[in-house]
Amino acid sequence: MNMEFQLKAELKCSGSLSETVSSSEIADFVKLCNTEVLKKGAPPGCGAEIERWNVAGEKIGLKIVSDRFVRAHDALLRVKNEFGKFLGKHSIGIRGMEIEDYAIAMEWEEGLRLKKLPFVKEIKQEEGWLKLSLDVDEFSLEKRIPDRIIRLLEDKREAEKWKGKKEHWELLFESNKKPFYFDKDPTEEMIKRGWIRHAAGRGQWIHGPQSTRIFRTLERILLDNLLEPFGYEEMIFPKFVPWSVWKKSGHAKGIYPEAYYVCTPKTRDPEYWEEVVDYYKVTNEVPLDMIMGRIENVGGMCYAQCPPFWIFMQGKTIPDEILPIKVFDRSGTSYRYESGGLHGIERLDEFHRVEIVWIGNKEQVIEHAKQLQAKYRRVFDEFLDIEWREAWVTPWFMVQEGKAGLAELKEVGTIDYEAVLPYSGKWLEFQNVSVNGDKYPKEFSVKLQSGEELWSGCSGVGLERWATVLLAQKGLDPDKWNAKFRSVVGELPEVFRFL
Amino acid sequence: MNMEFQLKAELKCSGSLSETVSSSEIADFVKLCNTEVLKKGAPPGCGAEIERWNVAGEKIGLKIVSDRFVRAHDALLRVKNEFGKFLGKHSIGIRGMEIEDYAIAMEWEEGLRLKKLPFVKEIKQEEGWLKLSLDVDEFSLEKRIPDRIIRLLEDKREAEKWKGKKEHWELLFESNKKPFYFDKDPTEEMIKRGWIRHAAGRGQWIHGPQSTRIFRTLERILLDNLLEPFGYEEMIFPKFVPWSVWKKSGHAKGIYPEAYYVCTPKTRDPEYWEEVVDYYKVTNEVPLDMIMGRIENVGGMCYAQCPPFWIFMQGKTIPDEILPIKVFDRSGTSYRYESGGLHGIERLDEFHRVEIVWIGNKEQVIEHAKQLQAKYRRVFDEFLDIEWREAWVTPWFMVQEGKAGLAELKEVGTIDYEAVLPYSGKWLEFQNVSVNGDKYPKEFSVKLQSGEELWSGCSGVGLERWATVLLAQKGLDPDKWNAKFRSVVGELPEVFRFL
Repeated sequence: MNMEFQLKAELKCSGSLSETVSSSEIADFVKLCNTEVLKKGAPPGCGAEIERWNVAGEKIGLKIVSDRFVRAHDALLRVKNEFGKFLGKHSIGIRGMEIEDYAIAMEWEEGLRLKKLPFVKEIKQEEGWLKLSLDVDEFSLEKRIPDRIIRLLEDKREAEKWKGKKEHWELLFESNKKPFYFDKDPTEEMIKRGWIRHAAGRGQWIHGPQSTRIFRTLERILLDNLLEPFGYEEMIFPKFVPWSVWKKSGHAKGIYPEAYYVCTPKTRDPEYWEEVVDYYKVTNEVPLDMIMGRIENVGGMCYAQCPPFWIFMQGKTIPDEILPIKVFDRSGTSYRYESGGLHGIERLDEFHRVEIVWIGNKEQVIEHAKQLQAKYRRVFDEFLDIEWREAWVTPWFMVQEGKAGLAELKEVGTIDYEAVLPYSGKWLEFQNVSVNGDKYPKEFSVKLQSGEELWSGCSGVGLERWATVLLAQKGLDPDKWNAKFRSVVGELPEVFRFL
Repeated sequence: MNMEFQLKAELKCSGSLSETVSSSEIADFVKLCNTEVLKKGAPPGCGAEIERWNVAGEKIGLKIVSDRFVRAHDALLRVKNEFGKFLGKHSIGIRGMEIEDYAIAMEWEEGLRLKKLPFVKEIKQEEGWLKLSLDVDEFSLEKRIPDRIIRLLEDKREAEKWKGKKEHWELLFESNKKPFYFDKDPTEEMIKRGWIRHAAGRGQWIHGPQSTRIFRTLERILLDNLLEPFGYEEMIFPKFVPWSVWKKSGHAKGIYPEAYYVCTPKTRDPEYWEEVVDYYKVTNEVPLDMIMGRIENVGGMCYAQCPPFWIFMQGKTIPDEILPIKVFDRSGTSYRYESGGLHGIERLDEFHRVEIVWIGNKEQVIEHAKQLQAKYRRVFDEFLDIEWREAWVTPWFMVQEGKAGLAELKEVGTIDYEAVLPYSGKWLEFQNVSVNGDKYPKEFSVKLQSGEELWSGCSGVGLERWATVLLAQKGLDPDKWNAKFRSVVGELPEVFRFL
């Protein structure tokens, strides 16, 4: 990809250059930069160049042009460094610098129009080129903002390529056909029977005793047939997730439109809140605007379930012999601000999931993913008696970072489990098994004593989804459920009756 | 309490009064108001009075003064109504009204200074009187804003009375003395052993396998010895709580300084969020200000656990024969933005609780509260083997609405269970049993077929608190735990080891 950089900057020195340093000395310095310093690391004929310079009192003005090999802002930092050494001989220091103008041009697809970019004051698109005028200072250069703008543009280009195309989906397995005993929407039927009722929040349900019994039965089956035989131990993962975790897990790159944000009071001082309380008491209305000014966003509620677990191991080195580690969590709710497609307990904002995490060396993690797959198949076949299929898809952590395609390593990825809902004919993803490679140990700095790469995998069991698939295919009458399931669920409790 | 009201208002009519209605007719009308309409319902010699009036074209100006019996704003609404009837005879209607000035004066404690009140433009405090100048319109009068301001003032006066005084606390019971085997802070010791680690959020912990096993054991003991024998059935209560629920439960009156607020995106449109994503990708910093402008507050996370359950029964009538109803929930986390006193798993922001709710007629609810108390005592004595005491305190729902004192009915209230922590000598509240009277059925409009009053009770079992008390008194070595507890807990799992 062709790129051109043009940077105008001014270095401010601690003393007058015109009085201390001769023009020819500076000319020699610039020559040295243009032949050596600004070419280092670039292919022959490439790199950056000081195209113009001028000295006025304590200031030296520079115009640097470059290709993509030594980008002009890198070149400027190199020049600043070298110039500092050079001036040192004359007992002059560099006090700072000002970026007057930074123009970047790159080849660009006509169709992909851009309106706004951070740290960019002007965007022009013409004849296959994108021209940016940046609004940056020395601090921004040190933070490598221009490089990150370019990476962002590459991301946007990548996203555009995938736009409209389907997500990766590759059939791996299809179960046997099974009889369906029901052709209605299970949520509707559960409501009718008083098993569930819509809660006061968006996409949120209250489960009565029957529905809860079904959820706990699914959990029991998972525990008895999969987690206990495999030696899993239960943990309690946090459910509020601060940004520091989402920065590491990558969710900070893309979670925004779907997050349930959590804000905490700026202070707990009752006086600070008195006006809000008074307003509520006088109007019976919660003053949302007043509240928004008194709280600050600190993160969000559990979205993917495993990221906050990793703080437990953060920064630690573990002995190889304790591998593989197998833990699970079922201690709370997960949230997604779902799109227009909210639908019963099938697609909702607040849901309940058992999260399974295993950690080991590469072989252990891949091997255990296969063991899990085999066990899941037995559970779906023998206990739920459902019809389903399995597909190799874009890894969940890439999807949640807003990326498409597949992981670089072919062993890293996600298997989605999907089942058809007879009432709608649609396939519902109800389960996944993922090998996440070394992503999490790396991001959270967990190391293995032997120095070998540490890998991990995870699998989320959404109770709402399992229940939906079971009830959609078999209906709500226990006598249509598999005998093995019935023996665990027992008799459904009857507690409420309404007139 | 002495109060004086002075209201100046102007009624606007659909036609000119000066041309249509004679002054003497209006004078007669005003006389009628002053002798009858504005005295109705007040003790003899009390009530409101139109002190001055004047007509100018289509407008009639009124000055109404009153005591607290027919408050001037009520008087104005009465006058408007009567005047409408009177003008109707002349084929003139009332188009609206303007409040020019509304002054309220009331006897007031010198010491209780007020700075700001909603709908009040000026506050003066002198010689034992509080003088308010209100900023209200017709709509505010119809919404009874002035009455609510007065109620708010009464609340403030009540709160002042309790300030500095201790909360109500009356010892009901003390357990036998028990041996203590530990004198350290259990959280510190759990950290040392790697059982728990502080999570990334404020007052939030990750529980490893050992700690989780202890929590699940406590839950098991509760289930086997209390919930199952009493015929409780499990439900799943919502964990996000919208304001509509907290308005009914009363939490909207006082929860603000302690809430974990939940905000949702104003839209899920990815374009709306692109700037945020771009900013993050370019700076690696989450742009909290940009986010705050794109989200809206919709409620908060679970604080008290039972309020959102009541939506399940809202607006329903239930047959008497299904009583008592006994349900519990353990489906997620609760949150409190704790004050400076954050301390380990003892006092924290994110915690885990089993919430127990029973519903019946008054006798059933009171009777079952006693049964629960008896069973809890057995559990604490036989399984946890701890030393504790029980006290009659201000009902939890009053505390959470910012009220002090006791409920009006003596059967309604909360018993707190407290245990001493040997390492600090402090008493920790670790449990409560509450009879909530008819509060919840009333607020959520749940009725009994017989018409009898429906009551409810609740009891929260905080797993962190139970564990803290057990470990603080007995220590972390299983051989110091009671045999009954040990037989349920089994061997503590060892999964992690760090170098």
